[in-house]
Amino acid sequence: MLGIGDDAAVVEAPPDAGGALQWLLAVDTMVETVHFNDATMSEADVGWKALAANISDIAAMGGVPRHALVSVSAPRAWEPARIGRLYDGLYACAEHYGVAIVGGDTTSSPAQMVVAVTVVGTVEAGAAVSRAGARPGDAVFLTGPVGMSGAGLHWLLAASSASGEQPVPHREAQAAGTAALVAAHRRPAPSVRAARLLAARYRVTSLNDVSDGLASEAWEIAEASGGTLALQRGMLPVSGSMAAYGRRCGIDPLEWMLYGGEDYVLLGTMDPADAASAKEAMTAEGLPFYVIGTVEAGGPGVLLQRDPQEAKAGRPVREPLEKRGYNHFK
Amino acid sequence: MLGIGDDAAVVEAPPDAGGALQWLLAVDTMVETVHFNDATMSEADVGWKALAANISDIAAMGGVPRHALVSVSAPRAWEPARIGRLYDGLYACAEHYGVAIVGGDTTSSPAQMVVAVTVVGTVEAGAAVSRAGARPGDAVFLTGPVGMSGAGLHWLLAASSASGEQPVPHREAQAAGTAALVAAHRRPAPSVRAARLLAARYRVTSLNDVSDGLASEAWEIAEASGGTLALQRGMLPVSGSMAAYGRRCGIDPLEWMLYGGEDYVLLGTMDPADAASAKEAMTAEGLPFYVIGTVEAGGPGVLLQRDPQEAKAGRPVREPLEKRGYNHFK
Repeated sequence: MLGIGDDAAVVEAPPDAGGALQWLLAVDTMVETVHFNDATMSEADVGWKALAANISDIAAMGGVPRHALVSVSAPRAWEPARIGRLYDGLYACAEHYGVAIVGGDTTSSPAQMVVAVTVVGTVEAGAAVSRAGARPGDAVFLTGPVGMSGAGLHWLLAASSASGEQPVPHREAQAAGTAALVAAHRRPAPSVRAARLLAARYRVTSLNDVSDGLASEAWEIAEASGGTLALQRGMLPVSGSMAAYGRRCGIDPLEWMLYGGEDYVLLGTMDPADAASAKEAMTAEGLPFYVIGTVEAGGPGVLLQRDPQEAKAGRPVREPLEKRGYNHFK
Repeated sequence: MLGIGDDAAVVEAPPDAGGALQWLLAVDTMVETVHFNDATMSEADVGWKALAANISDIAAMGGVPRHALVSVSAPRAWEPARIGRLYDGLYACAEHYGVAIVGGDTTSSPAQMVVAVTVVGTVEAGAAVSRAGARPGDAVFLTGPVGMSGAGLHWLLAASSASGEQPVPHREAQAAGTAALVAAHRRPAPSVRAARLLAARYRVTSLNDVSDGLASEAWEIAEASGGTLALQRGMLPVSGSMAAYGRRCGIDPLEWMLYGGEDYVLLGTMDPADAASAKEAMTAEGLPFYVIGTVEAGGPGVLLQRDPQEAKAGRPVREPLEKRGYNHFK
């Protein structure tokens, strides 16, 4: 109705499609040197990702993202074109997901860039999917692979000292075979369509987006729902380029998969009777879907169950996972 | 419905009071060393003011503030109690205005504290008051005095070097006779009730909150509406303590009144036939209300009309006002 330029934006809820809507509100912040630096992300990447992180929060409630408000605090030394490129990335992500940027506040900052984004979404009244509904016996699923963003950042931090350019250019990632990993880190693609399809057709009992890492998000569901999420090592989706990069640098990609974070796929639980049908429906829509374990009674806790041959090598068959993410910049 | 702790907050619009509601969305940011420093504001003051600035934006649309989301980036060196005090101030302001804080994101920051607040409000469908409706002949009004916040900051910056404490304690302001000015700077009180009363009963044609100074806000209405706001010097409300402090330090308070900003009262225009009745109704509710000029055709522009005796002293009777605020920290 009325966008940027007055004291506040005026927005109208979309017409109810046969029922009332509730509103979803989420905020996320990205801080230079804490969440990104000049080598890892361009200004446009920062803009895209700041909005994508919030869109992912709306997806994790089963909702539709509608409107966004942006607060940018940029160092005085920044030329205006840099803020322009930040907004280019914000608008690219907004357009991709049908979100209207309806408000913005730009201030100067003495040192680092800080961007805080708020997203307003909608969900059918009573249909929001929290983290608290998982029940013993439910299937645990993912809407995409995890660990790629962490692996991409690992490569970027290593490549930044060797590269003559900041941010490390995409062609260097292509040459190194890490382009998909770098893209996952710089331009995450939240699972809005997947969440809408799953929540509309199946008995989804909990949803959480993977921002701090699979282990940490599984813990959040376990604690909110009161149960133990038992994840199967052999059922976790493994990206081929992540596995190849891990082999090259002698790192077990499981660390990125469990603790890397910033994947912005969804971790959820659903009635196990629905899982096969959900897999089929998602595949028909070209959307990834992986059942990766089950919810057990007791806990709260998160377990990783290894394959028998791995267990033979002296590792425990079922290993409790720590509740931690990690700060890549420390 | 569901507050802090999940991916997004779920909120329900209040039941329609005889008609549909639209939503109002606003965001504002405060940055340490740009908008405040250790001497001028306590953490709790920063929290109050960050939310109040947004509530004022909702008031300036004629709406009711409902929900707030907070993004805090705090220096790693801050002890957790300082963030606690920041939230104390946020919650105090939220409670005062009936706002629910439904989301928050706290990140670390390498150097300065940055707080960005988003407020969601509601307004009766079609009833939002923009800056663009002022018509020639309309009365120009204020819902409170201007310049007190700027004068308070002037005293705080001067007192900070002499004071042994940071922030400068309130009792020092009381001893100096500047307590009302310091309170106006640290704990602004947005005109929500005034805007609701005026917009419901009278033909209010534009509203703008005084964040950057009276001159700058008047220019925004003039440019959005296409007219000239002619303000009467003799009709501008002058706070007694501001006038006294100005005499003591040899400063004409008009500078603070026109260019000081951060007053968070409302500047507006209305049908001139309603002005006397509005004054009466506001006074009956204990709310300040001052007619300070009229809208003239042509422009856009902003004029200050002086009293005849001032004009005799060689100053022009009608003086165009610059479109500027000023950065107190430069």
